[in-house]
Amino acid sequence: MDHSETINFASENYAGVQSDMMQALLDANKGHARSYGNDEYTLEAANLIRESFGADAEVYFTFNGTGANNFGLASITNKYHSIFCSDVAHLYVDESTAPETFVGCRIFVIPSESGKITAEELRVSIKRSGDIHHPQPKVVSLTQPTEYGTVYTIDELKAIKAICVDNNMLLHVDGARYFNAAISLGTTLKEMTTDVGIDVLTLGGTKAGMMFGEAVIFFNKDQSEGYKYNLKRSMQLASKNRFIAAQFTAMLTDNIWHRLATHTNNLAKEFERRIVEVPSVKVVHPVETNAVFIKMSPALHEKMQQHAHFYYWNDLKEEVRLVFSFDNTIEEIDRFIKQLDQYSSDLN
Amino acid sequence: MDHSETINFASENYAGVQSDMMQALLDANKGHARSYGNDEYTLEAANLIRESFGADAEVYFTFNGTGANNFGLASITNKYHSIFCSDVAHLYVDESTAPETFVGCRIFVIPSESGKITAEELRVSIKRSGDIHHPQPKVVSLTQPTEYGTVYTIDELKAIKAICVDNNMLLHVDGARYFNAAISLGTTLKEMTTDVGIDVLTLGGTKAGMMFGEAVIFFNKDQSEGYKYNLKRSMQLASKNRFIAAQFTAMLTDNIWHRLATHTNNLAKEFERRIVEVPSVKVVHPVETNAVFIKMSPALHEKMQQHAHFYYWNDLKEEVRLVFSFDNTIEEIDRFIKQLDQYSSDLN
Amino acid sequence: MDHSETINFASENYAGVQSDMMQALLDANKGHARSYGNDEYTLEAANLIRESFGADAEVYFTFNGTGANNFGLASITNKYHSIFCSDVAHLYVDESTAPETFVGCRIFVIPSESGKITAEELRVSIKRSGDIHHPQPKVVSLTQPTEYGTVYTIDELKAIKAICVDNNMLLHVDGARYFNAAISLGTTLKEMTTDVGIDVLTLGGTKAGMMFGEAVIFFNKDQSEGYKYNLKRSMQLASKNRFIAAQFTAMLTDNIWHRLATHTNNLAKEFERRIVEVPSVKVVHPVETNAVFIKMSPALHEKMQQHAHFYYWNDLKEEVRLVFSFDNTIEEIDRFIKQLDQYSSDLN
Amino acid sequence: MDHSETINFASENYAGVQSDMMQALLDANKGHARSYGNDEYTLEAANLIRESFGADAEVYFTFNGTGANNFGLASITNKYHSIFCSDVAHLYVDESTAPETFVGCRIFVIPSESGKITAEELRVSIKRSGDIHHPQPKVVSLTQPTEYGTVYTIDELKAIKAICVDNNMLLHVDGARYFNAAISLGTTLKEMTTDVGIDVLTLGGTKAGMMFGEAVIFFNKDQSEGYKYNLKRSMQLASKNRFIAAQFTAMLTDNIWHRLATHTNNLAKEFERRIVEVPSVKVVHPVETNAVFIKMSPALHEKMQQHAHFYYWNDLKEEVRLVFSFDNTIEEIDRFIKQLDQYSSDLN
Repeated sequence: MDHSETINFASENYAGVQSDMMQALLDANKGHARSYGNDEYTLEAANLIRESFGADAEVYFTFNGTGANNFGLASITNKYHSIFCSDVAHLYVDESTAPETFVGCRIFVIPSESGKITAEELRVSIKRSGDIHHPQPKVVSLTQPTEYGTVYTIDELKAIKAICVDNNMLLHVDGARYFNAAISLGTTLKEMTTDVGIDVLTLGGTKAGMMFGEAVIFFNKDQSEGYKYNLKRSMQLASKNRFIAAQFTAMLTDNIWHRLATHTNNLAKEFERRIVEVPSVKVVHPVETNAVFIKMSPALHEKMQQHAHFYYWNDLKEEVRLVFSFDNTIEEIDRFIKQLDQYSSDLN
Repeated sequence: MDHSETINFASENYAGVQSDMMQALLDANKGHARSYGNDEYTLEAANLIRESFGADAEVYFTFNGTGANNFGLASITNKYHSIFCSDVAHLYVDESTAPETFVGCRIFVIPSESGKITAEELRVSIKRSGDIHHPQPKVVSLTQPTEYGTVYTIDELKAIKAICVDNNMLLHVDGARYFNAAISLGTTLKEMTTDVGIDVLTLGGTKAGMMFGEAVIFFNKDQSEGYKYNLKRSMQLASKNRFIAAQFTAMLTDNIWHRLATHTNNLAKEFERRIVEVPSVKVVHPVETNAVFIKMSPALHEKMQQHAHFYYWNDLKEEVRLVFSFDNTIEEIDRFIKQLDQYSSDLN
Repeated sequence: MDHSETINFASENYAGVQSDMMQALLDANKGHARSYGNDEYTLEAANLIRESFGADAEVYFTFNGTGANNFGLASITNKYHSIFCSDVAHLYVDESTAPETFVGCRIFVIPSESGKITAEELRVSIKRSGDIHHPQPKVVSLTQPTEYGTVYTIDELKAIKAICVDNNMLLHVDGARYFNAAISLGTTLKEMTTDVGIDVLTLGGTKAGMMFGEAVIFFNKDQSEGYKYNLKRSMQLASKNRFIAAQFTAMLTDNIWHRLATHTNNLAKEFERRIVEVPSVKVVHPVETNAVFIKMSPALHEKMQQHAHFYYWNDLKEEVRLVFSFDNTIEEIDRFIKQLDQYSSDLN
Repeated sequence: MDHSETINFASENYAGVQSDMMQALLDANKGHARSYGNDEYTLEAANLIRESFGADAEVYFTFNGTGANNFGLASITNKYHSIFCSDVAHLYVDESTAPETFVGCRIFVIPSESGKITAEELRVSIKRSGDIHHPQPKVVSLTQPTEYGTVYTIDELKAIKAICVDNNMLLHVDGARYFNAAISLGTTLKEMTTDVGIDVLTLGGTKAGMMFGEAVIFFNKDQSEGYKYNLKRSMQLASKNRFIAAQFTAMLTDNIWHRLATHTNNLAKEFERRIVEVPSVKVVHPVETNAVFIKMSPALHEKMQQHAHFYYWNDLKEEVRLVFSFDNTIEEIDRFIKQLDQYSSDLN
């Protein structure tokens, strides 16, 4: 139902299901299996995740990213707590009032640059611990990579973790595109996670090429008694969970995650290399994973929409986002740049 | 990963994905499509649902049944309202505290017989309308078919709807196995829904053979302004919604729902015909859809577990549930009954 | 503004402020005092409560009973828990959906006789511990005395506490009229509380003669870290808390609580002694504290309303409640009975 | 229990009950009166409020300001809405997570200067109306006077109301010290409220000299069906409401509110006149009602604490707040300034 000619750099959610994932779905569709995650597919996926992230982790699966973030955060907080995140965090700007409904904590935001907050800004934002009138600081929630495709370095993560420890707070990471961050840093998943001291990780599957499904990985066990109950309460427990699990198993087998994230990161890098040559636009954030943000005039954006889908990310600043999915190609970038070049010339 | 020899009458959630549904998933996996339900697959499925249920309906999709019930109920209530359902309703006994968290209304329960409540019992349960100290009656939530596989007749539904109207209340139906009820009554979907005056329907897909996905169909528009926002807030909005929608389209095309529900209802009827001959057990609820509840001793249940999976539904009453999925067969029933017969003889 | 001739047996909330309490308010109105309970009046009242109830208790103050119950229960539960109480508990029938909003747990009810539940009924009601699909049993909430004025004996309390311990649950008591229960049992406050093993007690002040104010007394410290934050979050923390505290200090000084509760219990006993002589009505619940429930025809009730205020408690059963406040008198009972006698004769 | 020598400029909540209010409490303590606000005292107070604020208003009473704000806001919003307020609003920084628990909306903050936001800053902050992923803008909540004692002019209020109207939003005002604002502007209460188009007003009683009690005044009736139920649900409905009502009646009779607010505003003005002469400190916000904020060194603050209570409002900026209550006097200001002068000299 899609015009095959139109290039799609709009969202990984526009892409379908990557072929290995689809094969995994077909393979898992054999006979009966226990429901609600009590099946062997779920056990296998959880074990693979533990192998990659940390032997001691507790692993749960959810349908989507909003469910994963809110289930994870609700499971490690009390209702009088506060959560600190960047002012552009998905949790804060794109999850409606699910946090108020399901987590019930206050969200305090910290100014960000290209999606990242600094340890120092975080440090001065944490206030009034022990003051009954004020929400009590409990969690820092980072997005890695950020909503602008940038990546916290291991040192930056450790500095933020240190602030958490100083303030008796926990570190949550929204990793909707986590694999892309690992490729960008050139680290293992474990180095970017367990070694840093992340307490809870939302590990995205959908944007990486799955049909649906995310994992929530708990390294902190303080309130672990409630994890399983909160999962059901969050309306995120899949009846036929084997189909989420099988996709994660595929993703973590034969380094498929590595291959897919390398591909999409490379597309972004290639796009950046080409786009800097186009005088009418300007790259506005460091390109570190699979997205490129550029300043583009409304006129140009409108013309390009005939050939390619991509979003205005910030109307006021005239910034557009181009994000690359597992099935995007160099050839599409060629076509896109060629077309943009032409319009740019026309406009001049 | 499942022992092919073991018969599974445990749950439709143990079954995998029916082949037409799986084909629909493969077919929908072509190129890019708009996310969050703004795609043509979603439009097509919603239109098909409107054709089957009522031209004026508003249709939303969710991941699972708990999500569907709670999203639907939260969308038509205020926080000071109450919801009336049977004492065995899934909403009440199997959705953790999702109703408290997401809907926020009081749930009042009504005694049931074989899963059904009567209009009269409902009528006397509705109390203290206008009394500020008491939750205010707003919704009656029925399960059709019930958790015991029984079915409200059209007249029973109309009688209950009349009580709703008298009390200025709305009628919600949890239709996790809705197609089976329609087959049982021999009515169209519309006759069982729009003609009765149902205000909100949870239409189950997963138990009918889908990988995941339910629909929430609103016929009442009083608070329709908020439906779409509540969907996102409920953490039930799928990024790649086309894959839920495509399965519903398959289900409602070429009468597949009719064929599947007829098959599973017939299996139950056949099972009932056979089981009444077995002296050691006893059918305890009317068999009206695809489930059979029988009284069976723990000793017998334990022995049978080597050959077939099925659940003790009520330990105290020694009642087990056998439920038939799209991929169960007469041959499995043969084997089951034969085995049961043998154990029964041994025990005597 | 009230017709002095009209007798008021409607509610202790119709009564004003008992003179010692009012004097305490006047005495506390001297100069400035720290706000939000950081004042010496609050410290003194909390110490007096600890003296009476248990040296190790944590004491908080709230504005009203609904606030006290919900603050107390929210402080000892997680959102996936359930609370068990009688089917006539104030918490369940007279606090709107405050429990859903503020506590967020499921309330499961147990059938009661004259307001009381039995240990055995409780025991069989507690189900599905460890089952993720079901709210997890955490608290039993009793009302002492009950909404029907009856009193759990020490042995009954201990039997219920034993069920709690067996099920890893906590025991909360709604003691809106707690002093009346102690007088009825002839025990100290400690014997009825600490010795029984109550975990959280709502201690009522308003119905006992205060202008406003209740205390929540925590004996269990499992989640004590959050008590103070939950108090503020519950919107129950008084700015000028000294005025609640001073009334409690008055109540617990010179045995005033003892005197007041003895007086109101005695009025009920006297009323009962008289009313059993009146043939047209019938006492329907044991009279153990300061309330009497009688079956009375609507015709009689209507006639009596010209002379006395009292409520129909149950329209269907034609039961009225007469409750005695600190300022009610034997003389009013005389007048009431005389009038009732006359109408009774007229009606015969 | 207070050292009579110590001056208290810490908070109006440190002050006790003003004599007219206390007399009203004594006068209202006569016989029985209907509970839960169904009494004649409550009717009289509501009528007086309607006389002062607008004939068409619906009036409810609460125990405290946090209860009033959250009850009011919950009554005019749905759970997917957002509320905009200043970054120093009491609602945002001093009410724990009561807004998340009871209102459930996102709170978005707007930068403020001396506690005030501008219509223009508000205008650019309101975003993504109609976007399902984002909380939907519904209410602007101002504090009048602000937490820094400054006052929005009638024109400023009208400009903000115009932004509300443009965006289909409602205007709530937290008027914990509302009377002081009216005195400051020299307007009637109606001119500052109804004429401006305020939709919901929290009218503070406690800080103005009452023992406890606030009023919530609704001018908008869109969701008025739910107001009374939400009041009970918010745990703010007083059993013996006559005692809140009687104080409001006293406050609005014989212009007592006018006299008290004039007195405290004048004290602040006088304090300002004197303090500008003291070289070691500096007034940092416009003095428009009954509070003065000054920059003061920790050393000086510590020394002054021996003689007077007042709070560090902002440790980082070394700003202290001095706030004047109904029972503060010019003589206390004399003593304070004299003492401060002496320490200032010593330090130089």
